[in-house]
Amino acid sequence: MPLGEFELIERFFANRGATRGDVRLAVGDDAAIIAPPAGTELVLALDTIVSGVHFPPDTSGRFVGHRALAVNLSDLAAMGATPAWALLGLTLPAADENWLGDFAAGLDGLAKRFGVALVGGDTTRGPLAVSLTLAGWVPTGQALRRAGARAGDEVWISGTVGDAGGGLAILQGRLDADGAAREQLLQRFLLPEPRTSLGQALRGVATACIDVSDGLAADLGRLCAAGGVGAVLETGRLPLSAALVAAAGADAALRLGLAAGDDYELLFTAPPAARRLIEALDSVPRLSRLGAISATPGVQWQGATVERDLAHGFDHFRN
Amino acid sequence: MPLGEFELIERFFANRGATRGDVRLAVGDDAAIIAPPAGTELVLALDTIVSGVHFPPDTSGRFVGHRALAVNLSDLAAMGATPAWALLGLTLPAADENWLGDFAAGLDGLAKRFGVALVGGDTTRGPLAVSLTLAGWVPTGQALRRAGARAGDEVWISGTVGDAGGGLAILQGRLDADGAAREQLLQRFLLPEPRTSLGQALRGVATACIDVSDGLAADLGRLCAAGGVGAVLETGRLPLSAALVAAAGADAALRLGLAAGDDYELLFTAPPAARRLIEALDSVPRLSRLGAISATPGVQWQGATVERDLAHGFDHFRN
Repeated sequence: MPLGEFELIERFFANRGATRGDVRLAVGDDAAIIAPPAGTELVLALDTIVSGVHFPPDTSGRFVGHRALAVNLSDLAAMGATPAWALLGLTLPAADENWLGDFAAGLDGLAKRFGVALVGGDTTRGPLAVSLTLAGWVPTGQALRRAGARAGDEVWISGTVGDAGGGLAILQGRLDADGAAREQLLQRFLLPEPRTSLGQALRGVATACIDVSDGLAADLGRLCAAGGVGAVLETGRLPLSAALVAAAGADAALRLGLAAGDDYELLFTAPPAARRLIEALDSVPRLSRLGAISATPGVQWQGATVERDLAHGFDHFRN
Repeated sequence: MPLGEFELIERFFANRGATRGDVRLAVGDDAAIIAPPAGTELVLALDTIVSGVHFPPDTSGRFVGHRALAVNLSDLAAMGATPAWALLGLTLPAADENWLGDFAAGLDGLAKRFGVALVGGDTTRGPLAVSLTLAGWVPTGQALRRAGARAGDEVWISGTVGDAGGGLAILQGRLDADGAAREQLLQRFLLPEPRTSLGQALRGVATACIDVSDGLAADLGRLCAAGGVGAVLETGRLPLSAALVAAAGADAALRLGLAAGDDYELLFTAPPAARRLIEALDSVPRLSRLGAISATPGVQWQGATVERDLAHGFDHFRN
């Protein structure tokens, strides 16, 4: 007898994620009830990931569960928000209990680590896709936004870029790598790590912030467009991991670093006066200064020749 | 040149729904920012509707846009909540501008009527599905829940049941109907009307409440299970529309009224002392008293013979 919707929810999704005192009613009613802290604004993000579009169809449930929450955690990190409550919309072709167990474990592990309670959602039958909504909060008026970068601000990015693109290329057989480099790149694609504590540390410091999900070039373009500004950056400052350079070579690593998606690092701007404060942040991973914001719209990369088409990022409806 | 994701969102989903002063940041950043009213709790619902599962694949975008929000409005109505902010997760195979225009219009019209602002979401490529998250609020502690029915409480339902099931049967060629009856049944399936103001009026009155989305029998079973109680009901009190009885005949109308889904009426319980107050509610549509809650678990229908299998409702993973 196949697993019914009620049993499926009860078995895999009741009491998942962190236990939070501000959850008044969780999974099992028509809706969830939460009590956000006083003096805050709510921050809400929704991301959908689809099999064959955002992850290969044969991806383990564990990685899909992790990714569905991680991409939303990254959105909230870019706002400087504290994540708290999630709703899961899971569409799957059949109730495969092994896959579901892995999926629930991947989601649950990340949710617990980031203090997120799974409070509700919907499971339905159809082509495999996960649409997750994450809610969190910021002290009133303190959210980071894409708009706000001013001429003279410096441009920063966390971690390294291009690694997830390298991991995807390995999975798709377009790139060879061995040993530790292979593991590191695969992990960056399969288990993205949101920069939540960095985002919160940037409240009151960064003038603009965006998470790098569609590639550095594309997301930098969005940050500049939102602020009506441009940027002048040095390709030599691009943070590329030794693993990526070893696997792909310097030229391809640079291309991946600029154009590949799924990094989930934070790209932000801050006035030069904030440089010492930023360098002193107890941030894991480390932060790199790429260049500066200019009053003239348009992004210029100085250093290695960058082809024009790298300025365009990933677009689900064009590519 | 195909429509890009950015242009698609800008053209079809920016500034949709109601304009609300408590929206600090809407569509276009990494996440939305809202400022809920003081003294309230947040109520959050997520529903996914999938082409071929929840609506026929050739359904007009207008009806799909309406339905995606209506099913969530119905969930919030069942909590007695005031709806306010929505996030849209739209997955579609290609950016068909006519379909998108119809979809956005269907969503926008209903959102404006119910004071809901579209504040964010995600569009992605894949098999047609809509996962919508709706957030709203209740005065702290006043939400209606499924649990709470007590022995002796009376059982009420709004409107008529089975009409949407009749409409779906017409669309699928399983039922014939003409003229006004046909139109009425089709409309009940294609343009469900959430019972939002009724839900709010029931705060402090109803002891338990659920929306009837999977069929009266199934949802009544859930309400009873949540409260650890049973119910004794009269089939003669089942509110069946003249249109449904004319199209399907009395027996089939009763079956549809008990077992068909998509009614989106409110099923609730209240003590007998509240009967006059309930009858005096300025409720559109009218309310019917079906019977009473019993201390013994299990649902008994008295009157016309009801087959055992009608006690089971629709389950996406069993049917």
